[in-house]
Amino acid sequence: MPVLAFWFDFASTYSWLAALRIEDLAEAAEVDIKWTPFLLGPIFKAQGWETSPFNLYPAKGRYMWRDLERLAGAEGLELKRPASFPQFALTATRVGVAARNEPWLPEFCSALFFREFCEGGDITGDDAVAAALAAAGVEAAPWLARARDEAVKQALRERGEEAQRLGIFGAPSFVTEDGELFWGNDRLEAALGWTRGQR
Amino acid sequence: MPVLAFWFDFASTYSWLAALRIEDLAEAAEVDIKWTPFLLGPIFKAQGWETSPFNLYPAKGRYMWRDLERLAGAEGLELKRPASFPQFALTATRVGVAARNEPWLPEFCSALFFREFCEGGDITGDDAVAAALAAAGVEAAPWLARARDEAVKQALRERGEEAQRLGIFGAPSFVTEDGELFWGNDRLEAALGWTRGQR
Repeated sequence: MPVLAFWFDFASTYSWLAALRIEDLAEAAEVDIKWTPFLLGPIFKAQGWETSPFNLYPAKGRYMWRDLERLAGAEGLELKRPASFPQFALTATRVGVAARNEPWLPEFCSALFFREFCEGGDITGDDAVAAALAAAGVEAAPWLARARDEAVKQALRERGEEAQRLGIFGAPSFVTEDGELFWGNDRLEAALGWTRGQR
Repeated sequence: MPVLAFWFDFASTYSWLAALRIEDLAEAAEVDIKWTPFLLGPIFKAQGWETSPFNLYPAKGRYMWRDLERLAGAEGLELKRPASFPQFALTATRVGVAARNEPWLPEFCSALFFREFCEGGDITGDDAVAAALAAAGVEAAPWLARARDEAVKQALRERGEEAQRLGIFGAPSFVTEDGELFWGNDRLEAALGWTRGQR
C-alpha cells in the first residue's frame, strides 16, 4: 500500500483533529499512515517565534479556539481547552520516535491527544505518557526508559532536521512518498487523494 | 435572503480562489454576498509585519504557491504568478468601497483578480482599475475620480477599523450577520452553511 507520512506536534490543536480522522479515512483510501511526531519548537524558533503563533497573534489565537470548537462539534466532540497551551510534550514525542515501528504507535498518540483536548489534561508529565502507553496496551516503564536513550534523543533531532528539509513549517503536515507537502487538517483528504495517484 | 460578508484584500491569493467560487455557491445556498474589499496592510503592521507572511516566512510562502497551483488546477485554472507580490491595490480598493452598493461590484472585483492571478498582471495602476471597470460595464473616469474623494478614503479607513473590531486577521474572511467569523477559502462552505442556520 502507498504510504502517507503524518507529521504532527502533540501540542497542535489541528493535529488533534487530524489524528481523530486519519485512520478511518486512510483505510477507505487504502493508504498506510506513518505517524511521525516531531517538535515544532525549533522550526518556530528559526522563524523568530518563541511560542505558538496562536499566542503571539491574539486575534488569530481567539479565532483558532473558536474554529476548533466548531470543527470538534461537527465531529460530535466537545473541546476541553487545557490550562496550558502549547504543551511541550518532550517525553511523549521521544517515546513516539522510539516506537516508530510499533503497531501500537497510533493508539498511543491518540490517547495523548484525547487526554489533552477531550479532557483538557496535561500531557507533559511521565504519568500522562505512562497512561497513554497503558491505553495502547504496552508496559510503560521500558518505553519511558528508552525515551531517555541518547540514540532516541538524536533521532528526534534528526527528525526535526528532516522536517525542515521537507519544507514543513507547521502541523499537521502530510508528506507523500514523492515528496508532495500538504499542510493542515483541511488538506488531509487532498493528501490521501494524491497518495492514491488521484491528482 | 441572509447576507454573508466576504472580506478580502485584492493582493490575497486565497481570496482569488474564494472570489472565483463564491457567487455560484452562494446562489445554491440562497445567500447574498456582500463583497467587502479592505486593506490587510494595517492589520499586518499591527502584528509587526511589514509585508505578507508568505514573504516573511519563506517555507510558508513556497508552500502557499504550490498549494495554490494545486487548488487552481482542481478548478481547471492555471495560476499565473504576478511579478510582484503582494500588490498594494489602493485605487482598486477605494473604488470597491465607493461602489459598495453597486450591482457590478462583484464583476469589477473578479476582473481584477482574473488579471492578477490568471494573467499574472499588475493591478495597482489606474489603467488596470479602468479596465476592470470597463469589464464590469461602467465608465471608468467618474469612479477613478471618486476613488480620490476624501469621504471614500475615510470610509476605507473605517472599514479597516471595522475589520479589526470583527477580529479579522487575514483574508479571505467571512462574517455572518450574527458576527461569526470564518477565515480562509477552505471555510467558505462552512460560512455559507452557518449563514443558512445549518450549524
